[in-house]
Amino acid sequence: MSTHRVVIVGGGFGGLYTAQALRKAPVEVTLIDRRNFHLFQPLLYQVATGGLSPANIASPLRALLSRQRNARVLMGEVVGFDLDRREVHVADGVVVYDSLIVAAGARHHYFNHPEWEQYAPGLKTVEDATEMRRRILYAFEAAELSSDPKAREAWLTFVVVGAGPTGVELAGAVGEVAHRTLRNDFRAIRPASARIMLLEGADRVLGAYVPSLSQKAAESLARLGVTVRTGTIVTDVTADSVTVRHGDQSEVIPTRTILWAAGVDASPLGRMLATATGAEADRSGRVVVLPDMSLPGRPEVFVIGDLASYGYQTGKPLPGLAPVAMQQGQYVADLIQRRLRGDAPRVFHYKDRGTMATIGAASAVADLGWVKLSGYPAWLAWLLVHILFLIEFENRLLVMVQWGWNYFTRNRSARLITGKAPPDCSP
Amino acid sequence: MSTHRVVIVGGGFGGLYTAQALRKAPVEVTLIDRRNFHLFQPLLYQVATGGLSPANIASPLRALLSRQRNARVLMGEVVGFDLDRREVHVADGVVVYDSLIVAAGARHHYFNHPEWEQYAPGLKTVEDATEMRRRILYAFEAAELSSDPKAREAWLTFVVVGAGPTGVELAGAVGEVAHRTLRNDFRAIRPASARIMLLEGADRVLGAYVPSLSQKAAESLARLGVTVRTGTIVTDVTADSVTVRHGDQSEVIPTRTILWAAGVDASPLGRMLATATGAEADRSGRVVVLPDMSLPGRPEVFVIGDLASYGYQTGKPLPGLAPVAMQQGQYVADLIQRRLRGDAPRVFHYKDRGTMATIGAASAVADLGWVKLSGYPAWLAWLLVHILFLIEFENRLLVMVQWGWNYFTRNRSARLITGKAPPDCSP
Repeated sequence: MSTHRVVIVGGGFGGLYTAQALRKAPVEVTLIDRRNFHLFQPLLYQVATGGLSPANIASPLRALLSRQRNARVLMGEVVGFDLDRREVHVADGVVVYDSLIVAAGARHHYFNHPEWEQYAPGLKTVEDATEMRRRILYAFEAAELSSDPKAREAWLTFVVVGAGPTGVELAGAVGEVAHRTLRNDFRAIRPASARIMLLEGADRVLGAYVPSLSQKAAESLARLGVTVRTGTIVTDVTADSVTVRHGDQSEVIPTRTILWAAGVDASPLGRMLATATGAEADRSGRVVVLPDMSLPGRPEVFVIGDLASYGYQTGKPLPGLAPVAMQQGQYVADLIQRRLRGDAPRVFHYKDRGTMATIGAASAVADLGWVKLSGYPAWLAWLLVHILFLIEFENRLLVMVQWGWNYFTRNRSARLITGKAPPDCSP
Repeated sequence: MSTHRVVIVGGGFGGLYTAQALRKAPVEVTLIDRRNFHLFQPLLYQVATGGLSPANIASPLRALLSRQRNARVLMGEVVGFDLDRREVHVADGVVVYDSLIVAAGARHHYFNHPEWEQYAPGLKTVEDATEMRRRILYAFEAAELSSDPKAREAWLTFVVVGAGPTGVELAGAVGEVAHRTLRNDFRAIRPASARIMLLEGADRVLGAYVPSLSQKAAESLARLGVTVRTGTIVTDVTADSVTVRHGDQSEVIPTRTILWAAGVDASPLGRMLATATGAEADRSGRVVVLPDMSLPGRPEVFVIGDLASYGYQTGKPLPGLAPVAMQQGQYVADLIQRRLRGDAPRVFHYKDRGTMATIGAASAVADLGWVKLSGYPAWLAWLLVHILFLIEFENRLLVMVQWGWNYFTRNRSARLITGKAPPDCSP
């Protein structure tokens, strides 16, 4: 009998943890990803605001799995599946599986306005983050150069769309950049005079948190100079403005920097699998999986992480968070091993250890279930958890040094304007 | 009387050191650069090979000068000069000077074959370095995926053109990557089987060094699996090959990764200034300056660094090295202050403290004049000098941690494939 072949699509938290949990299993693991690295996405906003370098939050997948002899990494783009033949189709060839785990994640989406993306980049990849960094930093440079007060004001207006954890962390970090990092760096402008607006359609920031923490987060944001506007819908985005609607009122906000932190759209591989198996796909393309993460009629095909919609535990789908993907990956790895041994399956149960978001350099909100924290204590908890997470990767030391440095000097040393030429800077 | 206005074009070693040396002078300094950061170019090859992140070797110019109240930074592209009106023309406007220092540096050039650049990127900017990194790392991925032995061999052939310090350091670092960093990372290929070729037209590597050190460098390269081919001229470059001539013989080398470390071409601003003042420009566009770095008939206009050709001291032009640019910058800053005080000018004298190049992780060659070192002692000297240099910037701690980490783990943690999509990988 040949070795059981496990193919994993996606090297994010879900895919990587599945592979690692199969470390001692009598299987052959193939991890396929378009990129050669695992990305610690929760810290991407730090790259977007010059606090960390991309390499600080990315680890080569091959390095992470180099000592796991039953695993290999394949860099490639998955273009489709043949579930009957148990094949994954990669751009260049075919990989055959006995068990398949698809953990291809999600990207941001623009509510049927894909044309907004060019003006309002999202934050899912390293390239997204360096592009945001380029725009944020260049805006201050352009403001310094501009002699027209109106143009200068538009350059110094930063609009963040969406007040979930990413939007809140991003707006807070832009506040830090304007009020602390760049404080003494300019001669013609005062960076602290920048307007930072956080737009949210719902009636409070961090809608997934308890209202008291939303309140604390809003207060912390205000201290960093961030204006929160709730109940506000974006109706148009152009190169130099955002149009918003608040109740019956419409307003055009002139701005040159729009950062998108709203809505996610699951990988197209999800809809592909749903169509092939008759599984349901929700509005954002997530696949409604069975209680063991498999698909209808395909017990050997699993979908986990941001690509899966799993609503059995609480009645509403689990959120798109790293711990969910990690626990699902570990569950599926265990299930595959139980099947190989002929043991009965376990029931998946997500253990919620809490959620947290930082706001600026030394403030956060954290809901750990048994306790709700805000301010400095929440920030310490956040730091601890993130360093413990990163500890599995080699980057912990570098990230700690960089953070320590930034914290004590109020500096952000990775603030490089790189990439394509700056945008047209005429008013 | 209004304050004397000093305008500096270029934030490299020459421009930055001029600005800093004017710290206490009764002048207004304006530093103009296209980029928002100073780049420690001698370590760019470390970025190209995944050892350091771009931010580790780049410091925001505004941060470097934020406490120097007589200095301001202007991010912009200089497009020309009006020397009669004492104006620098920036894309967006005009800056007026009383003294002008042009330190706009040089780029690599392709001996009248600009079409080669797309196949053989050079190493002058952060983007150059991340592009090289992408190509080097992707080549191993493509080799792992390829089933055709010929295609695989082309992916595993790395050609470095030019065996000056950059070429030698780059080839050595690629050797490290293949033999050490990636040793256990692949399943289908053996990274150590990669062919790394260093091509040089002259008869030895590091032609500017004494022959005994060239010999030592060649031996260190051989130990890292680098094949040095001297007396070898590149006659053609395509997407998948380099054609070389050695004596009467011509050869086509199939390769997918060609790294350019030959020839430099001075900034076009040099030829512009030469034409305007009647100064001579040499073959690579460097301006032949007067003994005090000024231009004929324009005592208030100076050219320094890689853009200047200064041959008064030894009969042949000073080399394009950071210490030359730094000392020239400090000289000009002193000269401007002497003129303002009415003091007699000093004579410029370049103090050569030696040259050095590393080959791999723990070997180098160093010519300090009074002593010639190679191997491990030279590497320690190299490390010491570079850390002392970097000490003026905030990055020293991070670079040291990252280096220590790489050194002890034989790892390179910044090996991310980022940027545009990988090239077509069909054979």
